[in-house]
Amino acid sequence: MSLTNIYLSSRRRVLLSLAALALSACAQMAPVGDPLPSWKDGAAKDAIVQFVRKTTDAGSPQFVPPAERIATFDQDGTLWVEQPLYAQVMFALDRVKDVVKAQPAMANEEPYKSVVTGDRAAMAQFTEQDIFKIVVATQAGTTLEEFRGIVKAWAATAKHPKYQRPYTELVYQPMLEAMKYLRANGYRTYIVTGGGQEFVRALAEAVYGVPPEQVVGTMLKTDYAMRDGVPTMMNAPGLFFVNDKATKPVGINMIIGRRPQVAFGNSDGDQQMLEWTTAGTGARLGMLVLHDDAQREYAYGPANGLPDSKVGTFPQVLYDEAKRKGWTVISMKNDWKRIFAFE
Amino acid sequence: MSLTNIYLSSRRRVLLSLAALALSACAQMAPVGDPLPSWKDGAAKDAIVQFVRKTTDAGSPQFVPPAERIATFDQDGTLWVEQPLYAQVMFALDRVKDVVKAQPAMANEEPYKSVVTGDRAAMAQFTEQDIFKIVVATQAGTTLEEFRGIVKAWAATAKHPKYQRPYTELVYQPMLEAMKYLRANGYRTYIVTGGGQEFVRALAEAVYGVPPEQVVGTMLKTDYAMRDGVPTMMNAPGLFFVNDKATKPVGINMIIGRRPQVAFGNSDGDQQMLEWTTAGTGARLGMLVLHDDAQREYAYGPANGLPDSKVGTFPQVLYDEAKRKGWTVISMKNDWKRIFAFE
Repeated sequence: MSLTNIYLSSRRRVLLSLAALALSACAQMAPVGDPLPSWKDGAAKDAIVQFVRKTTDAGSPQFVPPAERIATFDQDGTLWVEQPLYAQVMFALDRVKDVVKAQPAMANEEPYKSVVTGDRAAMAQFTEQDIFKIVVATQAGTTLEEFRGIVKAWAATAKHPKYQRPYTELVYQPMLEAMKYLRANGYRTYIVTGGGQEFVRALAEAVYGVPPEQVVGTMLKTDYAMRDGVPTMMNAPGLFFVNDKATKPVGINMIIGRRPQVAFGNSDGDQQMLEWTTAGTGARLGMLVLHDDAQREYAYGPANGLPDSKVGTFPQVLYDEAKRKGWTVISMKNDWKRIFAFE
Repeated sequence: MSLTNIYLSSRRRVLLSLAALALSACAQMAPVGDPLPSWKDGAAKDAIVQFVRKTTDAGSPQFVPPAERIATFDQDGTLWVEQPLYAQVMFALDRVKDVVKAQPAMANEEPYKSVVTGDRAAMAQFTEQDIFKIVVATQAGTTLEEFRGIVKAWAATAKHPKYQRPYTELVYQPMLEAMKYLRANGYRTYIVTGGGQEFVRALAEAVYGVPPEQVVGTMLKTDYAMRDGVPTMMNAPGLFFVNDKATKPVGINMIIGRRPQVAFGNSDGDQQMLEWTTAGTGARLGMLVLHDDAQREYAYGPANGLPDSKVGTFPQVLYDEAKRKGWTVISMKNDWKRIFAFE
């Protein structure tokens, strides 16, 4: 081989490897197969795919600039199981026992007393106020970091009574796929939950790929304080903001400052979020998960011909509004091939 | 030219153009010249450059993963001029006249009366409470969209009394460069201001390249309501959250949910933000802008050997804390080659 040949050949190798680099970058952008494999073909799956196409195709009249691609998801009953009780309530009922151990005076005080003594009849009568009191008691007095650690430790060991699996496995696989598909198309996915913002932040990144700055939730008061000379953020007793029903748009504006293009919910707690989202100009996507699969999950709520549920109810009036406004109702039974990854 | 030659030559062209593509992608990542041209060489500029290097170099022990790269900036006095009065107060004093026109009963009510009649002596005695009342009155009753439009329209015509230029031109060029430099290195830049969140959101994208979801500010109440059958978010009378001093870390956690790596401020309103930021593990950057340039901007505050300022004061105790904790004090006079783009 002449020197010229060596020169040419090595130059060609560089070109080839650069070309390979460029091609592999292209390959990463290309769609690979069905992005929603756990969804049956039908209106619900179509609604998502068509919405993404028309809002991301640069030639479409309904194109949405990447910066404005915001998708909001309720959590309980929309992303994971909410029956028989919200996961955070399960957490709080477990944790209140530890709190009472550290502060024994609480043992004689309601609603903590009923929990500690395991008085199921009394617990069944708990008001929303009682539940909030317990939730606040299990968070107040911890630092931000401590509380997130406590939640993670609980989630690593606690098991759901029906499935006997960690709550973090009771995530709807079709919804994970929808979130990933939206993200792959430039949408930022936010969780907008009535649950505690700090509770959800502790788990959302690992479970959904949703970072802390994309969690809008119910907020406890927090206090900045020096603790042994160290600047510390403490969870304080007292509710600061309840993110539910008509305050979901308020929470969304507070954290995001934009009207979402997409909203997924499953109950009357999500009604105003869907209304506000879908009343925006251009293409909007509103979807509601209907719990109609007693076999694989749960069946509840009037929209499913069943009585009101204390946990995440889907009233007939919301169903009627969905039909009127062109929101898609997702039947867990008929639209989802599988519900959980472990199936 | 033989067919073989044409084949080889066209194949070579494809390879070459792919290689060019790959190289141009590389070129976009390479630093081009000085990223901070308006900063004089010295300790302040060095602090920024060294911080970015050690937190973004994958081999550095102080490497920060991209998701955690959060930089927070106070606005008034840190990113733009705050003297003789905060821009939002100027806005509110202008706008309150329109509000009173629409609601004439307010004309006889303080503090609005003093503003409308131009009673400078009374206005000089306004308390913080009075200012808040005026700010709230100029925002309440508008929709989110209307209010942002009103702010934009004001900013397009209002002029600063000293510079006779729009407020949006009174932005510190060195700070714009620092924000861009941080963003080019994977940091997300947030504004964390005592000013109104909605007021700042109206301008922040155009002025700083900061989108609405990256503005943490003082919040008015907002209400979700049906207006003529249209779901609407209204600015409501009443303060919801004041983002200042010890509540800046609270606001940061509410919106971001992470402790920043970087914080820039200029007054006692930023003290706790800098404390909380720099008390985190690993490399942290805390910087305070000192207003010591009466010639090109303003000179005020005890840290500069001058009396306390009612607007954005920098007390000696904060200066001492900065020295003790290794925060960098930026002298506008000595560290900045130029202050404004129009110079």
